[in-house]
Amino acid sequence: MSQSPYSDHIDVASLEPMFRPASVAIIGASSDPARIGGMPLAFLKANRFAGPIYPVNPRGPTIQDLPSFPSIRDIGKPVDLALIAVPAVHVIPSLEACIEVGVRAVIIFSAGFAEIDEEGARQQERIAAIGREGGIRIMGPNCIGLVNFSTGLYMSFHPAFAFSGKPGGKLGIVTQSGAFGGHVHRMALDRDISYSFCITTGNEADVDVADGLAFLAEDPGTTAIQVYFEGFRKGRKLMRALEMAQRNKKPVVAIKLGRTEAGAAAAASHTAALAGTDAVWDAVLRQYGVYRATSIEEFLEIGIACATAQRPVNDRIGLVTVSGGVGVLMADAAADYGLDVSPMPQAAQDKIKKLVPFAATRNPIDITGQVVNDFSLLGQAIDIIVAEGGYGSLVPFIGSSARVPERAARLLEQCVDLRTRYPELLLVQAAISPPEFRNGLQALGYLSYEEPVSAVRAVAALAAFRRHFARKDAPPDPPPAVPAPARGGPLSEYDSLRFLKAAGLPVVDARLVRSAQEAEAAAAALGFPVALKVASADILHKSDVGGVALGLASPAALRDAYAAMAAGVAAKTGRKVETFTVAPMVSGGVETVLGVNRDPVFGPVVMFGLGGIFVEALGDVVFRAAPFGRDEAHRMIRAIRSFRILEGVRGRPAADIDALAAALARLSALAAAHADAIETIDVNPFLVRAKGQGAVALDALVIPRKSE
Amino acid sequence: MSQSPYSDHIDVASLEPMFRPASVAIIGASSDPARIGGMPLAFLKANRFAGPIYPVNPRGPTIQDLPSFPSIRDIGKPVDLALIAVPAVHVIPSLEACIEVGVRAVIIFSAGFAEIDEEGARQQERIAAIGREGGIRIMGPNCIGLVNFSTGLYMSFHPAFAFSGKPGGKLGIVTQSGAFGGHVHRMALDRDISYSFCITTGNEADVDVADGLAFLAEDPGTTAIQVYFEGFRKGRKLMRALEMAQRNKKPVVAIKLGRTEAGAAAAASHTAALAGTDAVWDAVLRQYGVYRATSIEEFLEIGIACATAQRPVNDRIGLVTVSGGVGVLMADAAADYGLDVSPMPQAAQDKIKKLVPFAATRNPIDITGQVVNDFSLLGQAIDIIVAEGGYGSLVPFIGSSARVPERAARLLEQCVDLRTRYPELLLVQAAISPPEFRNGLQALGYLSYEEPVSAVRAVAALAAFRRHFARKDAPPDPPPAVPAPARGGPLSEYDSLRFLKAAGLPVVDARLVRSAQEAEAAAAALGFPVALKVASADILHKSDVGGVALGLASPAALRDAYAAMAAGVAAKTGRKVETFTVAPMVSGGVETVLGVNRDPVFGPVVMFGLGGIFVEALGDVVFRAAPFGRDEAHRMIRAIRSFRILEGVRGRPAADIDALAAALARLSALAAAHADAIETIDVNPFLVRAKGQGAVALDALVIPRKSE
Repeated sequence: MSQSPYSDHIDVASLEPMFRPASVAIIGASSDPARIGGMPLAFLKANRFAGPIYPVNPRGPTIQDLPSFPSIRDIGKPVDLALIAVPAVHVIPSLEACIEVGVRAVIIFSAGFAEIDEEGARQQERIAAIGREGGIRIMGPNCIGLVNFSTGLYMSFHPAFAFSGKPGGKLGIVTQSGAFGGHVHRMALDRDISYSFCITTGNEADVDVADGLAFLAEDPGTTAIQVYFEGFRKGRKLMRALEMAQRNKKPVVAIKLGRTEAGAAAAASHTAALAGTDAVWDAVLRQYGVYRATSIEEFLEIGIACATAQRPVNDRIGLVTVSGGVGVLMADAAADYGLDVSPMPQAAQDKIKKLVPFAATRNPIDITGQVVNDFSLLGQAIDIIVAEGGYGSLVPFIGSSARVPERAARLLEQCVDLRTRYPELLLVQAAISPPEFRNGLQALGYLSYEEPVSAVRAVAALAAFRRHFARKDAPPDPPPAVPAPARGGPLSEYDSLRFLKAAGLPVVDARLVRSAQEAEAAAAALGFPVALKVASADILHKSDVGGVALGLASPAALRDAYAAMAAGVAAKTGRKVETFTVAPMVSGGVETVLGVNRDPVFGPVVMFGLGGIFVEALGDVVFRAAPFGRDEAHRMIRAIRSFRILEGVRGRPAADIDALAAALARLSALAAAHADAIETIDVNPFLVRAKGQGAVALDALVIPRKSE
Repeated sequence: MSQSPYSDHIDVASLEPMFRPASVAIIGASSDPARIGGMPLAFLKANRFAGPIYPVNPRGPTIQDLPSFPSIRDIGKPVDLALIAVPAVHVIPSLEACIEVGVRAVIIFSAGFAEIDEEGARQQERIAAIGREGGIRIMGPNCIGLVNFSTGLYMSFHPAFAFSGKPGGKLGIVTQSGAFGGHVHRMALDRDISYSFCITTGNEADVDVADGLAFLAEDPGTTAIQVYFEGFRKGRKLMRALEMAQRNKKPVVAIKLGRTEAGAAAAASHTAALAGTDAVWDAVLRQYGVYRATSIEEFLEIGIACATAQRPVNDRIGLVTVSGGVGVLMADAAADYGLDVSPMPQAAQDKIKKLVPFAATRNPIDITGQVVNDFSLLGQAIDIIVAEGGYGSLVPFIGSSARVPERAARLLEQCVDLRTRYPELLLVQAAISPPEFRNGLQALGYLSYEEPVSAVRAVAALAAFRRHFARKDAPPDPPPAVPAPARGGPLSEYDSLRFLKAAGLPVVDARLVRSAQEAEAAAAALGFPVALKVASADILHKSDVGGVALGLASPAALRDAYAAMAAGVAAKTGRKVETFTVAPMVSGGVETVLGVNRDPVFGPVVMFGLGGIFVEALGDVVFRAAPFGRDEAHRMIRAIRSFRILEGVRGRPAADIDALAAALARLSALAAAHADAIETIDVNPFLVRAKGQGAVALDALVIPRKSE
C-alpha cells in the first residue's frame, strides 16, 4: 500500500552508532565547561563515559585535561559519534571531514539553519544530502543533543544535565524541544526518577522524532516512552513508530501542542511547520493508545507511572481511606476516568465492619480516624480488601501519617509485606509524605502521590494501557478490488455510488435513465415510491437547481416530475441534461455521514458523524487514519458525543451498528488503497437502519485528486 | 417570598462568642497533650491564646500547668466558649451546666450521635433543642472544632494543628469534614500559606456549613473562602450565605462531593444525607460564581490564589516564555480556560524583535534561550509587554533559572521592581524554583507555580471572579400576580396554559370548545389550519389515545377530526370527553423545553433544554435555582452544549433568545412565588421563533403539590 505523501521508512539499526557509540569526538570542544562546546565534555567526564573522548580544537594540546586534536582528521582512531559545535559556516566542512574519516554518526548543535531563513533551510538540506550520500545519520542542526544515561553519554549542552540521573532509568523521552527535555529531566530528578535516554531532535534534517520514538520502542532498557511534539509532518512514519511501541507493549505518553486555535497559531509561529488538524492528531494518538497529556505535570506523572509500576490486571479499583470525604473524592475521580468502583463482596464488608465498627465498607472503604489510635488496622483492613475484593489496583489514602517518623517506619514495613504477598497488585499511595518515604515506596514499585485524584488518574492511565495492549483487533479489510478513480473532476452521484458499491459498501439501487420511459421502467422494477434526480458530474448541488424529486408514488407523478425537472434544470443551468437516476425511496433509520479526507500530515483519514445538525452545527465528528478494522470502527462510532442516538431513543429501535462499522472499515480500506488517487469522499446521508437490517448510502460524492 | 422547604435564616452576630471568644473552658481537659481533651489545651498555650483558659476536670488541681476546675460551675468567671470533650453520655449534662452558668457558645467534640444510630440522632436533636432554648450556638457534635489563627484560638484536636499557621492569613475554610480541614491546613503550611479560620462543622446539630460560610463572608480578616461539602440539605440557607460572600466580593472555592453516580453512592453511605441532584448543585454553585474544584490540589491552589493575589483588570493574558513549546502549552491552556490570548500591537512586537532577533513576538512571547546568556533581556522584554500589551495578567515561564542562586537574587529584584511599577497587574510566575524564592514572590503578591498550566488556570479563575463580581444583573422579575394553583391533580393542558399566561408567559391562543360548532367558530376566529386536542386533566398522554389532530386546514377537516376524536377517545378511555381545545398551528422556530422541579435541597429550580432528542437522549439540560433575572437566563441558555442551534444553523435564522430568556426569568419568578404549591411545570414544546418574533408555549402541564 502506498503511504503517500510521505515515506514511513524507519531504520533503527542505523541509529546504533549515534545512541550507543563506543567512541566520541567533539568538534569545537571548549576548555570552558560553561560554554556550548565545553559543557558536553565536562558532562561526559563527570558521568564516566566509558569509551575514548576526542576533543577537537586547534588550540590544544589539551582541552579539559584530555589530549585534543586540531582536526577530526588527526585522531587516527575510529570515531563512532562526532558532535559538531562550531559556528554555522563551519558545519558543512566539519561534516564532510567526519564522513571522510569514517565517523558513523553526527550530532549538530549549531544553530542558524532552517529556523532562520530560506538560505539556512537550503544549507540544512545540503547537510541532509551529505549525510545520506555519506551513509551516516545526523541529529540536528539546532538541537540540544542526546543523553544515554546508562553509558554516561551526556552529549548535550543543556545546563539541566549538570545534574546526573542514576543509570538504570526505564523511561525514555524524545522531544522536539531541547529546552523542554532539560526541564523535565530536572523535574524527574526532583522525583528521584531518571531517564534511559533523552533525545532532542532540533531541526530534524535527518533523525526526527519518529526515529527517536522507534529507537526507544526497540531499546531493551526502555519500558515506557514520553514524546513531545511541536509540529511534525511525517504522519505515516509516526504511525509506524507508534506501531512498534504498541507491538512491544510500551506505553507512550505524549504532549502535542496546538490543541486550540490560539495554541495552533502560537505553534505555527514557533515551529513554522504545518500543523495538520488537531482533531486528526488526537484521533491518531487515540488509535495507537497514546496517552495525551495537557500539562507538564501530567506528562511526567503518567510517564513515571508507566515506567515504574505494573499495569493492573483489571479495571476494578479499590479505594481505602482514613477520611470519608477523600474517599468520595477518589470515587468521583475514578468514575470520571472510567474505572470500576465496584463494592466488595458482602462477606468481606462484614469482616471490615468487625474490625472497625463505624467503617464504610462498600468502596471506598473508610477505616476512619480510628487508624490514628491503632495503626495495625490499616494493614488488617487492606489484607481483607486485597484478598477478597478482586481489585486490580488499590489506592490507600492515609493523610499525613507518613510524616510521623515512627509511623513511617511501620508503614513502610507494611508496604514491603503487601508488595511481597500481592506481587500482581498495582499499589498506589496517596499521602503527604516526606521524600525519603515516597522514594522508598517508588523503589518497591508503588506509585505515590500527594493528590488523591492524581493517584486515581495514574491507575486509569495504566488500566487503559492494559486494555489497549490486550486488544485482539481484526486486521483492516484487504484493499478492495476496484480500480482507482480517474484523475479529473468529481464523479457524478451515480458514478460515486457505483464506485463505492464496487468497493463493497452498501448503496441504494439507483438506476441511470435517459428518458421518461426508461425512468418508468426502472421505477416499475424497483417499486414505487421512487426518487428522481438529475445525474450530471457538473451539477454538485442538485437541489439548488430543482434536480431532486422525492417520494414519487405513481407513474404519473414520475412522468410529471421528469418533464418538470428536465425543463427546469435546463432553464437554470443553461444546459440540456441527458441523464437522470431513479432510486427507491428508503427511509427509517438514523442518518449518518461518512467521509474521507486527505490530512496534510496523516494522509487518508476517515470521518464519521450523525447527519444534519450534529455534524454541521455541533461539530460532533470523529476521525481515524485509514485503514482500520471493524473493532476500531466500533470504537470510532462510540466516540461521538451523540452516540446514544444510535442505541435507539424515544422508542426507536437500536441502529445496525455492526453494518455501520463494517462500512467504515471498508471505506477506510478503500481510502488507504487509493490514497494517491482520492481527494475526498462524502457519503451523506448514509442511512443506518434498525439492527439486523443493514445500512445504505443514499447519496455520495467522490472527488479524485487533481494531480500528484 | 416563602423559601420552602427550609428556612434560610442566618444570624452571624450570634456566632461571635464562638469564633472570637474572650475566654474559653475545656470540659474534659486532659493532662496528656496527645489526647482529645489535651490537644486543644496544648495548642491554645502554644499559640498564646490571649484570654483566660479554664481546664475543667475533677482530677485537678492543675492540668497542663493551668489551674483546673472540677466543674464548669466552679469557674465563677464569665466563659464565652466552652469545649465539651467527654464521652457521649456526659454531653447533655455538661451542656446544661454550660447554659446554667451563662456560657455563650459550645463546641462538642464528642462522637456517638446521629452518625451512629437513631438513638444518637434523637440525643443530637435534644442537644440542638437545649441550645435553642438556652439561646446559645453549638458546633458539633462529632466535630474537630475550629481554629481562629489570628487570636491563637486552636480549639481542635486534629494533630495537624500542632503545626501553627502564621497569624494574618486571609483565606478562611469551612468544612464538613474535620479530617479534610486538618489535611489542607498541612498542605497550605507546606506552601507557606496560613488560614484566617478553619471551621469544621461535624454533625451540624446547630451551626452548619452555611453559617460558617456566612461568618467568613462577613469576617473583615478573610478575603477568600474555601468550603468543603459532603452533603447538605439547607439549599436556600446556603444560597443566602453565598449571596453574602458575593455581595462582599469574596471568591468562594468549593469541593462538593458526589459528582458521579459512584461518588454519590459513596457519599450517601458516608454522610447518610440526601444528596440532591448534582446537576442542580453544580448549577447553583455556578449561579453564585463559585469555583468548583475536583481535586484537593486545585481547591488549594485556587483558594490560595484568591487570597494572595489581585484579580486581573481584564481577561487578556500575556504569556512570556524562555521555551517556545511551553509558551504554546500555556496558550492552549489559556484558550481552554476561556482567556483572551490576543497578540501584542505590532509596534511592541517590533521592539521585542529588536531586543531578541529570533523571538516569537505575538503572544506567547518567546524570548528564547538567549536569556540564559543575557538575563537583563527578560526584564526589558517584560517592560515592553506590560507597557504596550494591555494585558490584565502576565505569566512568565522561566524554566529553572531561579535555582541558580545569583540569578534568583537578580530575578527577585526584577520582580520587586515590576510589582512596584505595575501595581494593577496580576503577576504569575511559572518556574521550578526553590521554596524561599517562591515564598518571596508570594509575599510580593505574585503567584508562583511549577506547572505552567496551573499558572494559567489560576489566572482564569481570578478573571472569572472579576467578571462575576462586576455583573450588573437585572433583578429577578417581581412575583407574578397570579394565584397559586389549587392543590390536587394535574391541570389540563388548557388550564396549564392559562395559568402560565396569567403569569406572563407567551402561550398559544388555545380556545376551549364543547361542540363541533364551537370548534368551527373558534377555528374561523383563529384562522385555519388549526390543531384540535382533547382537553381533560385526566388524560395526560393525549397522543396515546388519539386525542391530537394537527394541521386541520378546513372546516370539513375539523368536523371530521372532531367526530373521530370524540368517538375514538371515548372508546379508548371508556369515558365521554366533553371538552376540546382548538388552537392555531404555529410552526417555524426551534423547539425547546422549559420546566420547573422541586429539588430536595434547593427547592424550586428551573430547567431548560432543546426539544426532542437533545433533552431525552443527550441529557443536554441546564438548571438554575429560582428566581433569577434575564441576565442569568441568558447565561443559562448559553450553558447548554447545543446552544449553537439557537444561533441559526443550516441557513435558519437566529432564534429570539431575548424572548426565551424573558420567559425563563418569568417562569422562575412564578416557581419561586408558589414554591409551596407547585410540584412541577413542564412546557414542551416552547417554540422559540426567529429573532424579533417572540416565542410561544404550545403545550404545558402544571402539577400542583399534593400536600405540604
